[in-house]
Amino acid sequence: MTHLEIFNHNTICALATPEGTSALGIVRLSGPQAHQIIAKLFRATNPSLPLLPRRIYLGGLYDGERLIDEVLVHLAVAPASFTGEDTAEISCHGSPYILQEIMRLLVEAGASPAFPGEFSQRAFLNGKIDLAQAEAIADLIAAENEAAHRLAIQQMRGGYSQEISSLRSALVDFAALLELELDFSEEDVTFADRTQLLKLLDEVLNTIESLCKSFSLGNVIKNGVPVAITGATNVGKSTLLNALLREERAIVSEIHGTTRDTIEEQITLDGIRFRFIDTAGLRASKEEVELLGIERSYQKIRDASLVLLVLDATNPELFKEQIRQVTAHIDGEKQQLIIVLNKYEIINNKESFYNNDAILYNSDVTDLIHKLCKDLDLNIYAIIAISAKYKLGINSLQALLTSAIRARFDVAKLSTGSILITNLRHLHALQEAQKALTRVQEGLSSTLPTDLVAQDLRLALYELGSITGDVTTDEILGNIFSKFCIGK
Amino acid sequence: MTHLEIFNHNTICALATPEGTSALGIVRLSGPQAHQIIAKLFRATNPSLPLLPRRIYLGGLYDGERLIDEVLVHLAVAPASFTGEDTAEISCHGSPYILQEIMRLLVEAGASPAFPGEFSQRAFLNGKIDLAQAEAIADLIAAENEAAHRLAIQQMRGGYSQEISSLRSALVDFAALLELELDFSEEDVTFADRTQLLKLLDEVLNTIESLCKSFSLGNVIKNGVPVAITGATNVGKSTLLNALLREERAIVSEIHGTTRDTIEEQITLDGIRFRFIDTAGLRASKEEVELLGIERSYQKIRDASLVLLVLDATNPELFKEQIRQVTAHIDGEKQQLIIVLNKYEIINNKESFYNNDAILYNSDVTDLIHKLCKDLDLNIYAIIAISAKYKLGINSLQALLTSAIRARFDVAKLSTGSILITNLRHLHALQEAQKALTRVQEGLSSTLPTDLVAQDLRLALYELGSITGDVTTDEILGNIFSKFCIGK
Repeated sequence: MTHLEIFNHNTICALATPEGTSALGIVRLSGPQAHQIIAKLFRATNPSLPLLPRRIYLGGLYDGERLIDEVLVHLAVAPASFTGEDTAEISCHGSPYILQEIMRLLVEAGASPAFPGEFSQRAFLNGKIDLAQAEAIADLIAAENEAAHRLAIQQMRGGYSQEISSLRSALVDFAALLELELDFSEEDVTFADRTQLLKLLDEVLNTIESLCKSFSLGNVIKNGVPVAITGATNVGKSTLLNALLREERAIVSEIHGTTRDTIEEQITLDGIRFRFIDTAGLRASKEEVELLGIERSYQKIRDASLVLLVLDATNPELFKEQIRQVTAHIDGEKQQLIIVLNKYEIINNKESFYNNDAILYNSDVTDLIHKLCKDLDLNIYAIIAISAKYKLGINSLQALLTSAIRARFDVAKLSTGSILITNLRHLHALQEAQKALTRVQEGLSSTLPTDLVAQDLRLALYELGSITGDVTTDEILGNIFSKFCIGK
Repeated sequence: MTHLEIFNHNTICALATPEGTSALGIVRLSGPQAHQIIAKLFRATNPSLPLLPRRIYLGGLYDGERLIDEVLVHLAVAPASFTGEDTAEISCHGSPYILQEIMRLLVEAGASPAFPGEFSQRAFLNGKIDLAQAEAIADLIAAENEAAHRLAIQQMRGGYSQEISSLRSALVDFAALLELELDFSEEDVTFADRTQLLKLLDEVLNTIESLCKSFSLGNVIKNGVPVAITGATNVGKSTLLNALLREERAIVSEIHGTTRDTIEEQITLDGIRFRFIDTAGLRASKEEVELLGIERSYQKIRDASLVLLVLDATNPELFKEQIRQVTAHIDGEKQQLIIVLNKYEIINNKESFYNNDAILYNSDVTDLIHKLCKDLDLNIYAIIAISAKYKLGINSLQALLTSAIRARFDVAKLSTGSILITNLRHLHALQEAQKALTRVQEGLSSTLPTDLVAQDLRLALYELGSITGDVTTDEILGNIFSKFCIGK
């Protein structure tokens, strides 16, 4: 029995709301038996059988004569449902015992407990959503800030899928002509216009390239901007991290009511999430770095999008060495460096922070740093003076963080609704399509046999199709849907 | 502005499902603005405004032009809703970010975040449910086993409220006649038939007494049977507790998927929950008990419904002293004692446990214990031989636990649907009513002035009415509803 045939035979059920005690809980059913199972267990308070779809019915859910709960039920009829199958939703009191009893009754009545993502998988297999949309639902549920939410919503609504589909359909026609030539290869005819195909390829490759480029922004939006806080020991890195987090943190926990203990320290500024990575203090010596801990710090610096190098303003004689140490691990092309002069209240007074924000009066220090960086051929995004201890200059530093990201990425794309890719699977497929289409381009420009060109074109079509699920393998499906919650 | 007037003006909103990431989340709205607020934020995919009640609409929830989520919405119109007000339910993706955004939009559109229990409180104040029913909803959500669930369902459906109301209405007529006599007191007329009133009082008092008696069973069902495991040190109390819990525990956590770390060790046998209280080892000496820890153990023994006294079968010379020690703290009227002879595999062999269950071949030991108990004038429910170490005889012990409860309480009442009270507030009100009615009874039998009798009758009516909420004070309401979940 194939995957699809199993689908036609069984009815799945799952708890769709989180575990726990609350006012309401929801159990979902999908499959050909969904309505019969409800008819067996549910008795409407005002009987008017059969139940009509898309209406809410109040009644009792019974185990034989024993009332399990007073519930609301609504049905949807295939294909006008989320999964495209007959479905039912039972809204009951949010009691773990009741939910467990309802699940037991549903299974006894013939339903099977759903696997994670099985509802969405059915929606995909029944043509209700494409793969990219299904993935967007998982992203949407996981989105923790406005920007990530906006991207997921856009993808769920199919904007991104349309972009990919239009790329693909433009190529499909040409592929068909090339295949036709192959069928008539003995006769040496040419159906496909090479010049037009080359022009189309140019356009498609441009679009793919800009989509691939959008991944770095898309990824940063979805997963947050990794920011490494580095510097020698005792320059105040941890105090700075606390100053950056303190207020935001309180707000976050107030809104969410959830603990974030298991994730990295992070704040959302201007709709962009920043993930802070505290690194072990770097040794300010010329000795060869031997300790694994220090090497890990360097690795974290290399992985970060933004690097905050914290210097102790009272020790300018150490600047050179400390800047030099970090330089070796920064890629000026991909990373931005902000130099944070901490303990600035000691060399100037606190009043030098106008309105709690930093202003660098002491141009000697800035001149020194600029000179050192120039000598090392190091680009810096900004220098800022702060007092981590007294939390002075922190607002300015936060503003610098967002402006650095805006300088590097076209964040405005977010609000204009441009397509950004956020999914590593999609990036990989696009890159493979890019490679194949580049070979097609070369093949058409040279005198490569049509069958080799056609083969690469087919490969590109396969890769593009795998994004939306026009072509799939069981392996792709298994990978995608197993990451979903149960009940989704 | 009174409590009720505020109700007529504001619209409340709350998350009705547990915090956390899942397939679905539900936000509820109740109040006069509920439908207008939905109209502001929701756009149905197939516009057919105005939305009809009791139907499901798919559409987008918008913050201005920004789509927050694709949601299902349904409306109910006052008074045909849970709260008796206009209500709306929004079913969205179970993302903490989305739920937070929806709550924000609802509040911006004019709704107020609900207090715990505020939805149920409105249902009560609008006459949709009475107080006992409202309390039953909270009990229902908290019910963790079949028996507690059955009681809560029965109470939620109003069976209990009917019983109380019928008691009350029988008295109301007589009270009216007595009040009438008071109005005409100068004329010395008698409207109320004393004999008939006395007969009615008898019936009412009988019912109240049986309800009060049912509390001990109701309470045991709702909160579990407290079982103290006691005995000298090193007789194997902890091993026994582990043997009792081990299998059940695995099953419980498999079904519920929840941790029970914060509550006492408990198992459900035959639908009845047993809460095990491990006591510190009692000292087997004649010294005066000085240690607070030991005194606490005795307190736990006094609080338990069932006491398991564990004896080391290999040390019969210590039996007398150990039994004597516990005797002083057991009330034979209210508590049951089971003597557990542990380490029985040492004095007999393991084969003495037929089919893993205990059979006491060694009548010498039983005879000794029976004789000791008789000397101490101590009633024991049973003696059982076990091996906690090899988990032999544990099934028999579990069977003894349930049979002891069934011997003490009329557990059969549960399945016949008899009314049991489970709520301390109700017990208190019934006891007060009982006292007042007993005074009425005495007053009518003697020649007490009518006004004093009438006053006690009024008091009894007040107490009975407070159970269902026919008479209430803000204090009672505040106490009851503040214990609910938010969104309920």
